[in-house]
Amino acid sequence: MQVSLDCLPCQLRQILEAARMATNQTAIQEKIMENALQLSMDYKSFSDSADMGRALQQIIAKHTGVLDPYRKIKDKNIKKSLEVYPLLQRFTAKKDERLYWALKTAATGNIIDSAVYNDVSIEDSLMGELEKEFTICDIERLEEELKQAGSLLIIGDNAGETVFDRVLISQLEHLDITYAVRSEPVINDATLEDARASGLEDCSRLISTGCNVAGVILDECSEEFLDIFYGADIVICKGQGNYETLSEHKGRSMFFLLKAKCSVLAGLLGVSINDYIFKWNGVADEKLNKS
Amino acid sequence: MQVSLDCLPCQLRQILEAARMATNQTAIQEKIMENALQLSMDYKSFSDSADMGRALQQIIAKHTGVLDPYRKIKDKNIKKSLEVYPLLQRFTAKKDERLYWALKTAATGNIIDSAVYNDVSIEDSLMGELEKEFTICDIERLEEELKQAGSLLIIGDNAGETVFDRVLISQLEHLDITYAVRSEPVINDATLEDARASGLEDCSRLISTGCNVAGVILDECSEEFLDIFYGADIVICKGQGNYETLSEHKGRSMFFLLKAKCSVLAGLLGVSINDYIFKWNGVADEKLNKS
Repeated sequence: MQVSLDCLPCQLRQILEAARMATNQTAIQEKIMENALQLSMDYKSFSDSADMGRALQQIIAKHTGVLDPYRKIKDKNIKKSLEVYPLLQRFTAKKDERLYWALKTAATGNIIDSAVYNDVSIEDSLMGELEKEFTICDIERLEEELKQAGSLLIIGDNAGETVFDRVLISQLEHLDITYAVRSEPVINDATLEDARASGLEDCSRLISTGCNVAGVILDECSEEFLDIFYGADIVICKGQGNYETLSEHKGRSMFFLLKAKCSVLAGLLGVSINDYIFKWNGVADEKLNKS
Repeated sequence: MQVSLDCLPCQLRQILEAARMATNQTAIQEKIMENALQLSMDYKSFSDSADMGRALQQIIAKHTGVLDPYRKIKDKNIKKSLEVYPLLQRFTAKKDERLYWALKTAATGNIIDSAVYNDVSIEDSLMGELEKEFTICDIERLEEELKQAGSLLIIGDNAGETVFDRVLISQLEHLDITYAVRSEPVINDATLEDARASGLEDCSRLISTGCNVAGVILDECSEEFLDIFYGADIVICKGQGNYETLSEHKGRSMFFLLKAKCSVLAGLLGVSINDYIFKWNGVADEKLNKS
């Protein structure tokens, strides 16, 4: 999905935030922003917003040596998410439609994405957010695929949200579950380290996609990941970055589970900003059709 | 007040919004944004954010020929504000501290600033906003100055907000009141045409500052305006643009009446975003001291 003009101010805002996390020296922050403006002029040369975001983050690394500016934020988000995890479990346990609400809980984890929601208090806003229904929900298709599924791949998004995903995993634990994360730190997305700190190692097989953008560029992924990606019976991709990079790929059936956080994505999905989405990509899987 | 790094993404977001109002041709919008990124790299060459905003808006004029991209928005905001004007009058009339609430009403008019609040519904949010108190309120100083004042200069901000200012003017109608506006269209700020459409001609003397930025750069103002600016017993400057361009000027006593809409200004004022402010600049006027 090509870089929209709306992405330019948004990416610059995000890179300024990251620059300030990486250094408190104004002169370096200024240099980073000047480089970022220069790079933004070539926005059409990037395959998508995640690709451009990586190039911007490399500017920060070049000027500060900091490879993981969101480290503290990620630790804080994981810690907070672990604190609320029992509440999340209880929330889903008392619902009749557990799969629906487990999906919804996993999507709600997205509100701790500090790159967009800078000052959100998780506890304060959590219950209201959890109770909100999906605007788009292709759960019937998921239930259909589940009837004959033995394996599930979840492609994760932010650190912290990773803890929320355990609620979804606990509803699907009869499956062989793989949880994929970014190969290197990029904004506040989860890496293997973050996934382990979130407790995902106990309930899934953790792998890296082999790709270091805030999304999944298949051409850059490892063979190991691609085998699982194409081999899994069900694939659930979480968050905007995965949607931006994978929604145009029609090579297999996939589900996208996210909160629409920007006008570009909301517009593409035909929903309002902040709506929750569980959307099937419409690609009928051969295995399912054969049966 | 120099251009902050935070202003860069914000200005780019605003110019994209204006570009889309000026043309629906994507290729031209792209050209405008490319030019805007180029210009943003020289952000340090601008005296303040208003100065930079003017240069950005000139890019739109160059590529589209449209000199007033916010024309329709301004008309809509004035129309909506005229519709709620009786409600504003009733709101202030039933309060004991009428001057305080008239100031507050004038500040609240700032919520129709479409450049920042894109989809706000005036009626829905109005009553709640009107009732919010000022976080900073130097009304005692104003009351002090009022005791011997014969004249008042209000420097306006957005079109639509101009209607709200009539509530303040009606509390001070014993004074000789001048209302100053931008010399040319710039974002959604009021010009003479907008001030007239807002009904300000019936209750004040309308003048242009002679300056065409979203603020007041004194070096660019007309002699006529400067005579009134330095001659008026009281000066009230509305909105962020006027604060950004005039708050460092210590040549006379001034009051700033605004809603803090961005983190930069909120930080400078020591308040939270969306707080309402009525702030004296601390410059004791000779006339007042003499008495």
